Amino acid sequence: MATILLPLAQGFEEVEAVSLIDVLRRAGIDVRVAHMDGEDDDPDLVLGANGITIQADTSITNVIEEDFDMILLPGGWDGTYILAENETVQRLLKEFQAKDKMIGSICAAAFALKTAGVLGNNYTCYPGAKDEVNHPGYREDQAVVVNGNIMTSRGPGTALCFGLEIVKHFSGVETYQAVKDGMLLEFCD
Amino acid sequence: MATILLPLAQGFEEVEAVSLIDVLRRAGIDVRVAHMDGEDDDPDLVLGANGITIQADTSITNVIEEDFDMILLPGGWDGTYILAENETVQRLLKEFQAKDKMIGSICAAAFALKTAGVLGNNYTCYPGAKDEVNHPGYREDQAVVVNGNIMTSRGPGTALCFGLEIVKHFSGVETYQAVKDGMLLEFCD
Repeated sequence: MATILLPLAQGFEEVEAVSLIDVLRRAGIDVRVAHMDGEDDDPDLVLGANGITIQADTSITNVIEEDFDMILLPGGWDGTYILAENETVQRLLKEFQAKDKMIGSICAAAFALKTAGVLGNNYTCYPGAKDEVNHPGYREDQAVVVNGNIMTSRGPGTALCFGLEIVKHFSGVETYQAVKDGMLLEFCD
Repeated sequence: MATILLPLAQGFEEVEAVSLIDVLRRAGIDVRVAHMDGEDDDPDLVLGANGITIQADTSITNVIEEDFDMILLPGGWDGTYILAENETVQRLLKEFQAKDKMIGSICAAAFALKTAGVLGNNYTCYPGAKDEVNHPGYREDQAVVVNGNIMTSRGPGTALCFGLEIVKHFSGVETYQAVKDGMLLEFCD
């Protein structure tokens, strides 16, 4: 069973994070959601961009790369900037890349891959984030772009299909089809 | 500005609840998420069907019908059975119906509308929930069915488009289009 790390920082986009976690867990993938610590009394309660608070499973400081097959970043600008500045997240991205492990981002979070130096030259992101990401190889013709070990997607409306593509990678086409049918995701290619 | 009550019971489907809250709040609609109380130390932290815990804004016991324009139920079987058995939720559904206010459900939650006697004879729900809902007028040809003041939808894959239809009802077509474009929801009719 694959294990995926999903770092969650204040200001994350809720549909993106929850769609990914939900789809992946339905496929039997072990998703662990890691908060950024900080000075709050309840650092495990992470507030999203649209006022929805989600409880994380662990602290990013407890995470080691060896325990995971993929690191996957949800979007939302405020959360993305935190992920781009968090030393642990940035170090983990480089460690996953050095071991050729899977790395994923959706929406603005491509920016945090770029700051870690792991965003290749064939990727996608939120159209309105393209200028801020400011990196060669942006594509707008696919909901999900797979470039070696880097998987990227565009925004809230592509999050469920992005989750399905990750399911296909780790769990195969039969599980992909079962989750797709069960969630009524006919619109995903 | 419209105000919508979203009751959240343990076992709710996370993509459905979060998609609805996110889309509606992006349109400027005031969504208040109400937990069911109970005996937990933190009744505001509500655990979903796929292990995602979301923090509710208030208790259902604090809610009065006068404060809201719509009551909207997310799916997930475990959560649905609780909503169907909760006296406050069932009373609120009848009060909204008596005042011809908007009522919505997605996925299995049509069952909780049926138990309150407010599910009309032109609705949809999760295909696999049809037999348990066991009510005449089920349709499978539309992602969202609008039947007077009752709006129903099918499952996780239709939740974003369902939210958009509610936005169109309360906020008009310009806001609908702006949220649709901003979330990359080209697949919604």
